[in-house]
Amino acid sequence: MDGGKYSLFVIKIGGNIINSPQALQSFLKDFAAVPGHKILIHGGGKIATKIGDQLGVSSQYVNGRRITDDDTIDIVTMVYGGLVNKKIVAQLQALNCNAIGLTGADANIIPATKRPVKLINGAPVDFGWVGDIDNEKLIINNLKLIMDAGFTPVFAPLTHDGEGHILNTNADTIASVLAVGLSQFYNVRLIYCFEKKGVLEDVTDDHSVIRNINKEKYRQLLDENKLFEGILPKIDNAFAAIDAGVNEVLIGDAEDLIRNTTNSTEGTLITC
Amino acid sequence: MDGGKYSLFVIKIGGNIINSPQALQSFLKDFAAVPGHKILIHGGGKIATKIGDQLGVSSQYVNGRRITDDDTIDIVTMVYGGLVNKKIVAQLQALNCNAIGLTGADANIIPATKRPVKLINGAPVDFGWVGDIDNEKLIINNLKLIMDAGFTPVFAPLTHDGEGHILNTNADTIASVLAVGLSQFYNVRLIYCFEKKGVLEDVTDDHSVIRNINKEKYRQLLDENKLFEGILPKIDNAFAAIDAGVNEVLIGDAEDLIRNTTNSTEGTLITC
Repeated sequence: MDGGKYSLFVIKIGGNIINSPQALQSFLKDFAAVPGHKILIHGGGKIATKIGDQLGVSSQYVNGRRITDDDTIDIVTMVYGGLVNKKIVAQLQALNCNAIGLTGADANIIPATKRPVKLINGAPVDFGWVGDIDNEKLIINNLKLIMDAGFTPVFAPLTHDGEGHILNTNADTIASVLAVGLSQFYNVRLIYCFEKKGVLEDVTDDHSVIRNINKEKYRQLLDENKLFEGILPKIDNAFAAIDAGVNEVLIGDAEDLIRNTTNSTEGTLITC
Repeated sequence: MDGGKYSLFVIKIGGNIINSPQALQSFLKDFAAVPGHKILIHGGGKIATKIGDQLGVSSQYVNGRRITDDDTIDIVTMVYGGLVNKKIVAQLQALNCNAIGLTGADANIIPATKRPVKLINGAPVDFGWVGDIDNEKLIINNLKLIMDAGFTPVFAPLTHDGEGHILNTNADTIASVLAVGLSQFYNVRLIYCFEKKGVLEDVTDDHSVIRNINKEKYRQLLDENKLFEGILPKIDNAFAAIDAGVNEVLIGDAEDLIRNTTNSTEGTLITC
């Protein structure tokens, strides 16, 4: 840890919070109370699907992969970039947190590339308006300028292709990319809010949270076959972020946010 | 004019541009080419009504006034704050204009007050989630910080009440309020893009644009009963903005934007 840097919390919330106005309000109250530098990245939740259904635009899947066609990118731009993002901003303002709602297109912070057609199980899949981020192209200085002005960024999971199109981009990825980019200026704890209290040693026991995972412990857990398979990509991504400069990644419950932004964490703290 | 200040163009576009992808693309190309400091304020156009209709939310009117009920504020937040705003931002980025999409809630720039129930023709009218701006409460320094960072603000016609709610606010008013607020830092020309080339001396003749109107000329035109009644509120608002610090107001055609950001204007230039 570089003691000369300020601390920064990069916090990602997903559908389980966005879908419940009560859970969201409670989370935002805690988020506003987190001292110092912080960024929020939100997913979209079910509302885009619901509004899509009402508009007669149903989610298209090819080989089990969701496709972002012309109608769908309009819907997620409206719902993620407008409805969800601006409501969060207005609620944070009411809590005296000077939020500014952003997509990766705003201030050109996250240029991305439209995902090329890929062969999956031998068949070509066009994912449509989905953006993959090239970390090298991130313009983190533009985000730093906004933070230095005293604002708290709130990101919708959208980027752009530099050719005039908004792209749908995974919120976990945006959180990770921003955390890595900002690690040159801050000591970063990247927090993924999750449905569980943390990574569980026994998936049937919500109290079996593994408090700390480093690379050695991770190898040991893998050897012992103790981890639920679904959590492995999250842990792999966490180590990738740490290898790229992030100090710590925490996987925990949104309800524990206040504790999880102190040294007395409740969730699973992943360090090198 | 204070020669020590930089020039700033505050430019408002309405439905006639937003409703046509071709007109919008052409306008944005010109906007991106305007040198120096500039701000764009856009209205919503017909798309909010269209999407509202598709979602089964029809515009409600009471005594001829449009009401912004719970469903309607969600729709305009999605459409103005998300779809229209972020598409404009992505298109400007493609034109090398470093745009940042904002509502009045973002960075707390435009706090507003929910319009109180008013008696109209003796009957109480609740306009719903409509925001009136109190110029005194504008936090123009937060907008200045964003501009000083090198970004070009693009405003959707939305504000907030400081209690967690987004409010629907007239785009002409937002343009005027921002132009007035920024006039302490810049020499401001406020440009209203319009369906006509400018204010017409003869409404049946599109070529009869009045090139300059000052207060004396305005009195003379009023005395001669030469002006179309619908234009009077626009001119009154223009003089109010000028009295409050804006240098010039220009009413003109979006197609003439390039000329209208030089000294060789095509539209109607209103000065004190």
